[in-house]
Amino acid sequence: MDDLNAETVTQAALQQMAATPDPRLRQVMASLVRHLHDFAREVTLTPEEWLTAIRFLTEVGHCCSPVRQEFILLSDVLGLSALVNAQHVADAAPGGTEASLLGPFFRADAPLLEAGAQIARDPGAPELLLHGRVTDTAGQPIAGARIDVWQTSATGLYDLQVADAAMDLRGAFQTDAEGRFHFRTVQPLGYQIPMDGPVGRLARAQGRHGYRPAHIHFLIGAPGYQELVTALYFAEDPHIDSDMVFGVARALVVSPVARDPAAPIQGMASLRYDFALAPAAGHGSQRVGADPASLQPA
Amino acid sequence: MDDLNAETVTQAALQQMAATPDPRLRQVMASLVRHLHDFAREVTLTPEEWLTAIRFLTEVGHCCSPVRQEFILLSDVLGLSALVNAQHVADAAPGGTEASLLGPFFRADAPLLEAGAQIARDPGAPELLLHGRVTDTAGQPIAGARIDVWQTSATGLYDLQVADAAMDLRGAFQTDAEGRFHFRTVQPLGYQIPMDGPVGRLARAQGRHGYRPAHIHFLIGAPGYQELVTALYFAEDPHIDSDMVFGVARALVVSPVARDPAAPIQGMASLRYDFALAPAAGHGSQRVGADPASLQPA
Repeated sequence: MDDLNAETVTQAALQQMAATPDPRLRQVMASLVRHLHDFAREVTLTPEEWLTAIRFLTEVGHCCSPVRQEFILLSDVLGLSALVNAQHVADAAPGGTEASLLGPFFRADAPLLEAGAQIARDPGAPELLLHGRVTDTAGQPIAGARIDVWQTSATGLYDLQVADAAMDLRGAFQTDAEGRFHFRTVQPLGYQIPMDGPVGRLARAQGRHGYRPAHIHFLIGAPGYQELVTALYFAEDPHIDSDMVFGVARALVVSPVARDPAAPIQGMASLRYDFALAPAAGHGSQRVGADPASLQPA
Repeated sequence: MDDLNAETVTQAALQQMAATPDPRLRQVMASLVRHLHDFAREVTLTPEEWLTAIRFLTEVGHCCSPVRQEFILLSDVLGLSALVNAQHVADAAPGGTEASLLGPFFRADAPLLEAGAQIARDPGAPELLLHGRVTDTAGQPIAGARIDVWQTSATGLYDLQVADAAMDLRGAFQTDAEGRFHFRTVQPLGYQIPMDGPVGRLARAQGRHGYRPAHIHFLIGAPGYQELVTALYFAEDPHIDSDMVFGVARALVVSPVARDPAAPIQGMASLRYDFALAPAAGHGSQRVGADPASLQPA
């Protein structure tokens, strides 16, 4: 038996994990241990700092509930979610609309609504029409595609963040025979990530503003096509260039127009966006995120 | 605004954190983000795997309680705790007794007992005498040092792991004017780390046996000296060379003797070990671990 030191303990850990039957788990955990140990050596992590990290992660865990996913938020603000999203999309969906993050506020069971419906129970602000088409990468319409949308209110809150967490500001729609969709909503407000928990405390200690630019989330699926997770970002938002979670892409930045004679409903500002779905490629979900309720231990 | 990809998102994250007022926090988080992103790129972490990790960490968090610290356990089995311990000890305590891990079963408020007391409420196995001296690194006795000891029973369980979690198999002692201490206990049994939670599930998936060799923990402190966190490991244990948490060092491996005429209590097996404390060096605690109760969010 040789004594382990701060260098040789890495090899000892890798040896203990070398018999992992699943080759992918073996590969991922070996890489994780090497990078985690490299990090601790690079900064000479002290026992006090290590304990601060244990306490922080414990608090992040206790913050998770059926309506809040603080670990996804942590991954988001560290840029990890955007990285996973970017490398998956580069791999999986050539020719389709740019993807963005699912985020921690998706809910799996949003109600299916009629075309043209208003998704806000109490708009409380001028209505905004969203419309467009869902096509394949060759521009051919996809009929019967399901479009889940969700967003903050005009005051910057998701339904999960208000007292009763009742379904609001979200819904699902189906495209018609020509792949068209339209629905009414209100202009969402950019918002701070939840700043009242451990991740928010970290963000403040880092001197970060905590804001995401205003956006509307989309999850679009149809049989035979790669599920698309994306969001449209409003160009006028002051934080359009400094998204706290690194989700903005140029192709997803939009500006409503005050009047569009071609819009299916008149009398309100409108925004047209067409989405293209790549063919299914056996890559599974693009969802870098999940309904918080689905992540709670039994 | 340039679109971020799986490479450039790292620089964007570092830029957002570059204004962190505290230089150490800035350094640690920048290193963490670089290594975390390198890991995700090296294995091309998929959305499904990322979500598995989110779910795992959430479960680890929910497993933490006033009597269980699953994040410390995770750090232990990944070799991170041993690494932090090793580089801190190399830095802080030259000439003192080798350190080992505090582990997740320390309790801050163990009772102060009379010299010679039995720490097991119901030994249920042959008694074992532990005795020795606490000195400085020059071999001069330290009077009035406080020695906290804790261990598993002869069946391999800590008091925190039994139903009522009442104080047992632990206690605190003070050295006498010559730096001597002695107390009675039972031979502890080597044990598996808690295998009924997410960390145990990971360990099984890695094909690891999960055992720590039998050992007795010591936390020794005296004014003017660096606090010593260590443990004595029993040479006969079958897992002495494959500790699940990488805590064993050769200098800490011991074997009781059946009869020692010099022992302060006769009629039982005994074990002598002398501990040396390094001078206090302003490095703070060596505790790579903590009382689980102290880590619970309010």
